[in-house]
Amino acid sequence: MALYVHKYGGTSVGDIDRINNVAERVHKARDRGEDVVVVVSAMSGETNKLVALAHAVQERPSPREMDVLLSTGEQVTIALLSMALQERGCPAVSYTGWQVRILSDASHTKARIEDIDTAEIRKDLAEGKVVVVAGFQGVTEEGDITTLGRGGSDTTAVALAAVLKADECLIFTDVDGVYTTDPRVEPRARKLDRITFEEMLEMASLGSKVLQIRSVEFAGKYNVPLRVLSSFDEDGSGTLISYEEAGVEKALISGIAFNRDEAKLTVQGVPDRPGIASKILGPIADANIEIDMIVQNVAEDQTTDFTFTVNRGEYKKAMEILENTCKELGAKKVRGDEKIVKVSIVGVGMRSHAGIASKMFDALAKEGVNIRMISTSEIKISVVVDEKYLELAVRTLHEAFDLEQPH
Amino acid sequence: MALYVHKYGGTSVGDIDRINNVAERVHKARDRGEDVVVVVSAMSGETNKLVALAHAVQERPSPREMDVLLSTGEQVTIALLSMALQERGCPAVSYTGWQVRILSDASHTKARIEDIDTAEIRKDLAEGKVVVVAGFQGVTEEGDITTLGRGGSDTTAVALAAVLKADECLIFTDVDGVYTTDPRVEPRARKLDRITFEEMLEMASLGSKVLQIRSVEFAGKYNVPLRVLSSFDEDGSGTLISYEEAGVEKALISGIAFNRDEAKLTVQGVPDRPGIASKILGPIADANIEIDMIVQNVAEDQTTDFTFTVNRGEYKKAMEILENTCKELGAKKVRGDEKIVKVSIVGVGMRSHAGIASKMFDALAKEGVNIRMISTSEIKISVVVDEKYLELAVRTLHEAFDLEQPH
Repeated sequence: MALYVHKYGGTSVGDIDRINNVAERVHKARDRGEDVVVVVSAMSGETNKLVALAHAVQERPSPREMDVLLSTGEQVTIALLSMALQERGCPAVSYTGWQVRILSDASHTKARIEDIDTAEIRKDLAEGKVVVVAGFQGVTEEGDITTLGRGGSDTTAVALAAVLKADECLIFTDVDGVYTTDPRVEPRARKLDRITFEEMLEMASLGSKVLQIRSVEFAGKYNVPLRVLSSFDEDGSGTLISYEEAGVEKALISGIAFNRDEAKLTVQGVPDRPGIASKILGPIADANIEIDMIVQNVAEDQTTDFTFTVNRGEYKKAMEILENTCKELGAKKVRGDEKIVKVSIVGVGMRSHAGIASKMFDALAKEGVNIRMISTSEIKISVVVDEKYLELAVRTLHEAFDLEQPH
Repeated sequence: MALYVHKYGGTSVGDIDRINNVAERVHKARDRGEDVVVVVSAMSGETNKLVALAHAVQERPSPREMDVLLSTGEQVTIALLSMALQERGCPAVSYTGWQVRILSDASHTKARIEDIDTAEIRKDLAEGKVVVVAGFQGVTEEGDITTLGRGGSDTTAVALAAVLKADECLIFTDVDGVYTTDPRVEPRARKLDRITFEEMLEMASLGSKVLQIRSVEFAGKYNVPLRVLSSFDEDGSGTLISYEEAGVEKALISGIAFNRDEAKLTVQGVPDRPGIASKILGPIADANIEIDMIVQNVAEDQTTDFTFTVNRGEYKKAMEILENTCKELGAKKVRGDEKIVKVSIVGVGMRSHAGIASKMFDALAKEGVNIRMISTSEIKISVVVDEKYLELAVRTLHEAFDLEQPH
């Protein structure tokens, strides 16, 4: 019998009506003869409410007690969804994290799953029950409640799918799949039927906030086919995220990701000697500022220009730190620009096809889009351009790589 | 080191301010050098909110899932109270029912505690921590969450005090102790410093709703001194409920209890033969109607009059059933009265003193209060009187037995 893990986020179980909708969908799957394990988040708004209570009591709430508090959110949902299923004549049983025994390490508020006991779940499935599991939570060897941090319910779902060797892990969300790019920027953006784990990781880390990176990594590691689909659309088949299949002709490019929140900082005329990068970036990292792209060019006069990007919100802080460093290093000048964006093309097809980069640069040049920085990885090419070119660049590349057509 | 179990109900932890007040009080106790285990209920209103959610989903909610749902209420409180204690520099750790391992039977929504594992609690106390335990909940041998039913948090507190051999179990509530009678009826009612378990049981079952009967029984069985006191009054010492101490001169009467919600039904002229009581009461009990007092008088003509009382809300239903039974038995007539109340005097002093009953009846007769039924037990005498005499009867007896004076 085919086994599916369903995951429904906070919006999908946000009120009683929506919980009933989820029950309907799960019941139908069960009626089709599928074995179903359902992972749910807290009803939307509940977690924020609990966090607010904690902060009203303690300035920096104890992480252990925070987890005791927050884990109640999903516990409410599993009970209500199990009731909704039973009300439809669909046998169901709920489990909290400690009841399934989702064993985690003791890093409260950001624990990592170490092991899952599947004996009870398999027994329930064999008895024809739908198993409803609280996402986001685990338990330590010592019996303390933990939570898995942001996107934790996705991780729970993928981990369960992995240990149960589920046919697919269905992530129900408020979008109907992964798109070639953001439809608000390029209306001809097309929903992808398939995408690889690697591509999804690049898309996710570049701002397509459909799935949490950690759960995609996890799914890739354990080869769990992930399907993203809408909990509000009865008929959609969403987007399947899996490994590249041999023999399947892949498109060159799967999608175009972008990030509006970038700012760029450049140190000009730095003496070009070993260790210079860490001297420049060390103080930035020490201030907990995350660095994204890094580009270094050797100039002719034994000095170098060093450029990197940070989140726009941290631009001012980074600039202050950099100006101090600059004096110490005897660099000529520090320049910055907070009106830039990053646009990336992503695709495993790049691996086996040459000329993708030049095709990208050509297309942008023809439209007069000036490229300020370039950075490449195995399946991604990113360019930094002036903010005003974002929409133009995305649309130009979408058309150049023929993304509106299925391949 | 003296060990106290504190129990705070829903009103005492109803919002963040009140949780902070509880933390203050516990912290002070800890600073006095006391070991403290705190048992808390859900914040007031929370349980009702969860019950409403369940009923919105399922007509008759699954008891197992109901317990999963309801147990989140106390889990929120233990986390918040532990945070509030830590914020005051008082080391604290929270435990749910399954974490302490409050082992119960599997009677969901009304489970009974079977065993408690105290190893972890003793270790925490030895390390100077306050231990905060979720009331009202337990876990079965199989790992299912259970709840203990009405007044369950009191039961948790008493059970913990028993297994930990605590010096006292302090029940904080919204009244400052147990009174000789309801001060709204008799303004001269006096708070008792002490009362015995047996007296408290009679007072509780007669409508003094300070403590749940089950927790008093439990405390008596394991000889746990219980103290009822107000969570809003810093200095009160409340009422201590314990066993009668040898050598202590006891008052004849400790208090006067009453119950407004009674109704009386009488079958007249029933043929007086064996088994008649069960023939009359069987159908009533089968309809799940609880019977309170039962009185039977033998009349002269080989027939008997049979009278019993039920909760007023079930009077009509009981009357219908009784009329049917009456025809079958060939009884003469069924009569009923739903304008009656029960007034009782309670005191272990009765055991060793004669003449209490006649003193009671005399006092009532002098005020013209007509007694309709009488029922006695070892430490209690109850009379049924017309509803209109309730206040008069209570005040008359309060004065007759000199209850406004400490003895």
